[in-house]
Amino acid sequence: MKALRLREWKTEPVLTEVPQPRPGPGEAVVRIGAAGACHSDLHLMHEFGPGLLPWGPPFTLGHENAGWVHELGPGASGLEVGQAVAVYGPWGCGTCTRCLLGIETYCENPDKAPVPGGGGGLGLDGGMAEFMLVPSTRHLVPLPEGLDPVTAAPLTDAALTPYHAIRRSWPKLPPGTTAVVIGVGGLGHLAVQILRATTATRIIAVDTREDALALARESGADHALPTGSGTGPRIRELTGGRGADAVFDCVGSDSTLALGAESARSLGDLTIIGLGGGTLGMGFFTVPYEVSVQTTYWGSRPELIEVLDLAARGQLRASVTTFGLDEATEAYRRLESGELTGRAVVVPNRS
Amino acid sequence: MKALRLREWKTEPVLTEVPQPRPGPGEAVVRIGAAGACHSDLHLMHEFGPGLLPWGPPFTLGHENAGWVHELGPGASGLEVGQAVAVYGPWGCGTCTRCLLGIETYCENPDKAPVPGGGGGLGLDGGMAEFMLVPSTRHLVPLPEGLDPVTAAPLTDAALTPYHAIRRSWPKLPPGTTAVVIGVGGLGHLAVQILRATTATRIIAVDTREDALALARESGADHALPTGSGTGPRIRELTGGRGADAVFDCVGSDSTLALGAESARSLGDLTIIGLGGGTLGMGFFTVPYEVSVQTTYWGSRPELIEVLDLAARGQLRASVTTFGLDEATEAYRRLESGELTGRAVVVPNRS
Amino acid sequence: MKALRLREWKTEPVLTEVPQPRPGPGEAVVRIGAAGACHSDLHLMHEFGPGLLPWGPPFTLGHENAGWVHELGPGASGLEVGQAVAVYGPWGCGTCTRCLLGIETYCENPDKAPVPGGGGGLGLDGGMAEFMLVPSTRHLVPLPEGLDPVTAAPLTDAALTPYHAIRRSWPKLPPGTTAVVIGVGGLGHLAVQILRATTATRIIAVDTREDALALARESGADHALPTGSGTGPRIRELTGGRGADAVFDCVGSDSTLALGAESARSLGDLTIIGLGGGTLGMGFFTVPYEVSVQTTYWGSRPELIEVLDLAARGQLRASVTTFGLDEATEAYRRLESGELTGRAVVVPNRS
Amino acid sequence: MKALRLREWKTEPVLTEVPQPRPGPGEAVVRIGAAGACHSDLHLMHEFGPGLLPWGPPFTLGHENAGWVHELGPGASGLEVGQAVAVYGPWGCGTCTRCLLGIETYCENPDKAPVPGGGGGLGLDGGMAEFMLVPSTRHLVPLPEGLDPVTAAPLTDAALTPYHAIRRSWPKLPPGTTAVVIGVGGLGHLAVQILRATTATRIIAVDTREDALALARESGADHALPTGSGTGPRIRELTGGRGADAVFDCVGSDSTLALGAESARSLGDLTIIGLGGGTLGMGFFTVPYEVSVQTTYWGSRPELIEVLDLAARGQLRASVTTFGLDEATEAYRRLESGELTGRAVVVPNRS
Repeated sequence: MKALRLREWKTEPVLTEVPQPRPGPGEAVVRIGAAGACHSDLHLMHEFGPGLLPWGPPFTLGHENAGWVHELGPGASGLEVGQAVAVYGPWGCGTCTRCLLGIETYCENPDKAPVPGGGGGLGLDGGMAEFMLVPSTRHLVPLPEGLDPVTAAPLTDAALTPYHAIRRSWPKLPPGTTAVVIGVGGLGHLAVQILRATTATRIIAVDTREDALALARESGADHALPTGSGTGPRIRELTGGRGADAVFDCVGSDSTLALGAESARSLGDLTIIGLGGGTLGMGFFTVPYEVSVQTTYWGSRPELIEVLDLAARGQLRASVTTFGLDEATEAYRRLESGELTGRAVVVPNRS
Repeated sequence: MKALRLREWKTEPVLTEVPQPRPGPGEAVVRIGAAGACHSDLHLMHEFGPGLLPWGPPFTLGHENAGWVHELGPGASGLEVGQAVAVYGPWGCGTCTRCLLGIETYCENPDKAPVPGGGGGLGLDGGMAEFMLVPSTRHLVPLPEGLDPVTAAPLTDAALTPYHAIRRSWPKLPPGTTAVVIGVGGLGHLAVQILRATTATRIIAVDTREDALALARESGADHALPTGSGTGPRIRELTGGRGADAVFDCVGSDSTLALGAESARSLGDLTIIGLGGGTLGMGFFTVPYEVSVQTTYWGSRPELIEVLDLAARGQLRASVTTFGLDEATEAYRRLESGELTGRAVVVPNRS
Repeated sequence: MKALRLREWKTEPVLTEVPQPRPGPGEAVVRIGAAGACHSDLHLMHEFGPGLLPWGPPFTLGHENAGWVHELGPGASGLEVGQAVAVYGPWGCGTCTRCLLGIETYCENPDKAPVPGGGGGLGLDGGMAEFMLVPSTRHLVPLPEGLDPVTAAPLTDAALTPYHAIRRSWPKLPPGTTAVVIGVGGLGHLAVQILRATTATRIIAVDTREDALALARESGADHALPTGSGTGPRIRELTGGRGADAVFDCVGSDSTLALGAESARSLGDLTIIGLGGGTLGMGFFTVPYEVSVQTTYWGSRPELIEVLDLAARGQLRASVTTFGLDEATEAYRRLESGELTGRAVVVPNRS
Repeated sequence: MKALRLREWKTEPVLTEVPQPRPGPGEAVVRIGAAGACHSDLHLMHEFGPGLLPWGPPFTLGHENAGWVHELGPGASGLEVGQAVAVYGPWGCGTCTRCLLGIETYCENPDKAPVPGGGGGLGLDGGMAEFMLVPSTRHLVPLPEGLDPVTAAPLTDAALTPYHAIRRSWPKLPPGTTAVVIGVGGLGHLAVQILRATTATRIIAVDTREDALALARESGADHALPTGSGTGPRIRELTGGRGADAVFDCVGSDSTLALGAESARSLGDLTIIGLGGGTLGMGFFTVPYEVSVQTTYWGSRPELIEVLDLAARGQLRASVTTFGLDEATEAYRRLESGELTGRAVVVPNRS
C-alpha cells in the first residue's frame, strides 16, 4: 500500500510503498477515510532532530485519523468490521491510573506505551496511508450517525484540544460570566463554537487578523477584539471591571499570556493551549488572586466521544479542504504557505 | 396605597387601601413595577385553612416581584434609590449556613425568619400593591441592562425554580446525553429554554396537550412526545437504550414519577419540581441503579442573578400578559379558567 | 484442580475436580490466594431458581478474589507473572462509556459482557478454586506494598461497596457535618472506618445489636445508637436539629429507609446500599427538600485501587477468619449460622 | 478604653486611651477575648509607607479576633449579647457576587467596603483593645461548644488560610495521592493537621529547620524532608515517580516555587500561600502538564465555620502563648526575635 512517510528528520515526507499492516492480538487495522494535516507535522518535518524526542523517523505521518475497521486481531472485540471509527490519537500504556480513565495524554508509564509520549503519526505509523495499524481497539471510537470520516478526522485533534480545555472550566462559566479566546485559528474558532454550544457564557475573541475576528463572530463570539495595548482594559470594561472567568490562550506567546493575566478575574482560569513557547511570571503581583494557570495537552477518550456527538448534532463544524493521498505533499505545502481555508484533510480511500 | 389582599382563608382577595410601608434599619421599600400572578396563589385562596401553614391571612398577595428601590432604611446599603431590582422571594433567617450562601429556601432557622417558610406574598405583604416592604436589602437583586420589571418579575419564580433544578444536574449533561422535561407549562417551557441555553444535551419534552408540545418545540426541544404507555419505551429508543441522564418532572404526579423512573439512565437524576402530590416507591427494583431522586424547591439568590443575566441576553423569554392593579382579580380569574397565554403580570406602577 | 462449584439452583456447593483454565488472547489466569465467602453466595445457593437471573449454574463460587498472576494469554500486557493482584469483580462489556471509565457495575451493553450483570463467581467460574480465569487483564489490580491476598480479597466487595457510596457523598461531608451509618455488619463497620479515614465528619452508627454498636465505636463512630422509635429524634438532637448530611443504609429495609428519611438534612444524601428489599415512598412530604435518594451497587475499578491503598496504609482493616479450600463448605456453614467473627476467607494456595 | 494603635507608618504601636466604640445600624461591638499577633503586623509596622496600600494609620492593630458580643446596633439580628464569637476578618462590600457567598477576600467592589482590601486591624480598628467595632453582624461567627476565644482567635487567619487552600484541592486528594507542604511554620503545621483530618492523602512536609520537621511529624506528616537539591527527586521517589497531587507552598520564594513545580504531578495543584514574593516562570516546559498554579488569600466565611468546628472536635490545635493587653508590645518583640513557641495571643479581657 501507499504511505506518506517521514524518513529522516529535516526532510520532506515521501509517498512510498510499504507492506499493508496486519493486526496482532487485541489490535485492529483501520482503512483510512481521512487524515488531517496538522501544523505540528510541519514542525516534525523541519525543526526536530535526533535526540529531542523519545521517538523519531521513519514513520508514516497523520495523527488525526478516521476511517473504517478493516481487520480485527485475535481477542479484539467490541467493534464490527466495516464500522466507521475515529482514532483516538494519544496512545499510553493502557494500565496506569490515567490510561484507565482514558486520559492517555498524561500516561504515567510512557515507557510501556507503544512509543513514549507519541502515537500513530507521532513516532509510529499514522493515517497518511491506505491502512493504519492501531495497537488496541480501545483507541477506536465509533462515529455517531451523521458524521463521516472526512468531517471527523480533524476533530480528533483540532476540536478535542480546545474541548478538553473548555470542559474543565465549565464550573466557572455559568450565565453572567465571560470567556476569552485568544487566537482564532484552527483551534480557536472551534473553541468559540464549543463555548457557544455548551455554555451561556459571554464570549470575547481576540486576534491580530481582521479575517480571524470575522470568523470569530460567525462562530458565535459576542465580541471580537483586535490585539493591542487597549485589549486588556477593553475586556475589563466589557466585564464591568471584573475580568474574564476563563481565558483560553490558543497562541501561548509571552504577550498573549500577559494579556490573559491582565484580563482574568480572580478565581478564574487561564489555560495555555497554544505551543507558542511563552512564559508567564506567576506570583502574587502578576496574576489576580486565585486565578488558576495551567497548560493543557490534547484531550481524553471520553471527551472525544462527546466532541463527535457535538459535531454529529451540527453544533460544531470545522471547514475542510480535501486532498487525495498523492496530493498530501501539496496539502502540507499549502498549509505552510497559508493558502488554505480551514483544515487540510487527506482522503486515501473513499467510502 | 392600594393593595390586593387575602383577608381570610377561602376567600377571594380584595383591593383595599393600606398604609404605605416605611423601612426600618436595613430594610427597603420597593415601588412595584410588576408582580406575577401564580397558580400557587389560587391554592392559597381556595384550598388552605387555619393551621395548615405556619402563617396565614391577612396579607397582600404577590411573590414574584420586581420594581425600583423607593426608600432605604437606616444602615441599608449597596443600592441606590431609583435602581431597578428584582425581589428574591424566599426569606430566611439570614444567618444559618444555608442563608449565608443565599439558599434561603432551605433556611435552617425558620423560626428566626420574618415568617417561617414564607416571604413577601406568602404570609407577609407581597407585591400586588404600589409599594412593598422588603426586610433586608440582601433580597434585592439589581436588574441587568436590558431587563425591565415586567419581564423580570415572573422569572423570579417560574424560571428560577427549573433553573435551580437544571443547574444542579449540569455535570450529568455533557454532549451525548439526554434530558427529559415532563410537563411543558409555565415552568416546563422555561426548563427547555434553560437546557438549550446552558448545555448541549438532547432535550425530550413530554406533555398530554398538543399545544404544549408545539411550545416545547418552539422552545428548543429536540423531541416532543405525547404522554402514553409508549412514552417510556420511546425515550429508551431515542437514547439508544440507555435512558435519560436527567428527568425534570414539572408535574409530580404518581404517573409522571413512574414515567421518570422508567426513563432514567443509571447514575442519572430524577428531580421532582411539580407539586402534583405524587409518590415514587424508591428501591432497588423500581429505579435504575444510582439514579438520584430528589425534590427541589424554588432557587437560591446567586441562581436568580444568573437567571436574570440569561434573560437580559435574550436566551430566556417568558411570554407575559399585563394587567393593571385594579384588574388583578381579573388576572387571577383568567389564570384559573385557563384563558391566558403565558404568565399574568400585574403592573401597579409604570416606570 | 479442585473447585467449589454450585451445580444447580437450590443445592449446596460441592468441591469437585475441574480442568485448570488456560488464558486466551488478552486473558489471564490467577493463582488464587484468597476468596471471600459472602452472604450473597448463600442467597445464590438457597433462594434463586431458573429464570430469575440472566445466568445460572454450574459455576465455581467466589466473587471476592485475590492472588498472583499465573499465566497471561497472547497480547495480555501490563502485568508480570507472579505479581500479586486483586480481581475487580464486576465484568462488563469493556467498551461502553461506563466500562471505559471502569464503572463496569453499570455496563450499558450487558449482552456483550462475559455474562450479563455478573462476573467470576456470579455465573462464571470464581475464586473458590486453585486457579481462576479472568477474561481481561483490565480486571486485575496490582496489590500495593503491605497488602497480601488474604487481607485484600474481602475488600474487593465488602469495602469497595461502602467506599463507592461514601466517596460520592464527600462533597456533602466537610467539617461540621454528620454522617449516619445504619447497620454495622461487614459493610457497615468498614463504612465507619472509611468515613473516619477520608473525612472529618461526625459519625453516628445505628444498629439493633449491642456488639455491633461496640464494633462501631471501635471503628471510629462518634455515637452509636440502638434502633428504636427515638433514633430519628436523637439524630436530630445530635445534629442541632439539622439532620444528617448523608445517610448510608447498609440494611435497606422499609424501616431503615424510613429512619433515613426521618434523619436526613435538606440537600443531603440518603444512599441505599443494603439489599433488604425495602421501599421508600419518595415525595415532597416524606423526605426533606432536595435530599438525594439513590441505590448504589458495588464500585468502580479506580475506586478499588483507592480502597487497596487505604488498607495498605492501615486505615482500613477487615477482620478475617481463614479456611482451606476443603473447608469452604464449613466456612459457609458458619457464615450462615452467625458463628463467625469478621469475614470468612478461603485460602486455596499459600504464597 | 485601651487600644494598641499604629499611629504612623514605620513606628512602633502604642497603647493609648481611645473612646469605646458604639454600634450603628446593623453593627456590633465585640468585647475582645483574644487577638492574635501576626507576622504581617510586623510588616505593617516596619515596611509600609504612605501610598502603598489603599489605607493607613492611625488604627488599632489585631486582625485575628474573638470575644463576646457586647452591644448590637439597631436592626442587628441573629446574635445574642454575651455570645462567644470569632470575627471573620476580610470585610468586603457585602453585596457583590463574591461577598454574597462569604468570599469577602475577593470582593469585587472594594471601594464600597469599609476600607478597600482591609478590615479590622488592617486600616480599621482591630482587636488589640478592650472592645472592637464590627461593621456588620455577618462578620461574627458563633464559637461552637468546646472552643474559647483564646483558642479560636489565631485560627481565624493561621488556620483559615491553609484550610482554604487545601479545601479547594480535596477532589485531587483521594486515597493513593500525596500532598506536599513546604514550610512548616505557623500556617504549615496547621496545613499538615488539616490534611490529616480531612483526607487520607500521604503528607510530605519540607522545611529547612530540623525543629520544624519534628513539628511536621507530630502534626501528622508521613515524611518530613529537609530542603536541598535532592528534595524534588526524593518526592518523585516517594510517589513512585508520579509526583505530588497537590503542593501547598507556605513560603512562596523563587526556590520553593521551583521545588513545587519540580515535585508536582500532572493534573495536580501548586498553590502559593506564602507571601515570599517569589515568581514561577509558567509554561509548557517548566511545570508538568495541566498542573494548576494559583495564589490563595485568606479564606471565606463558610470555611471559617468549618475550621472552628474542626478545632472544637480537637482535630486542629494551634499552640498559643498568651499576653495581657499591656504586654502586647512585648508579644510583638518576641514574635520578631523568634523567641515564641506557637502563636502569640493578646488577651484584653478574661471571660
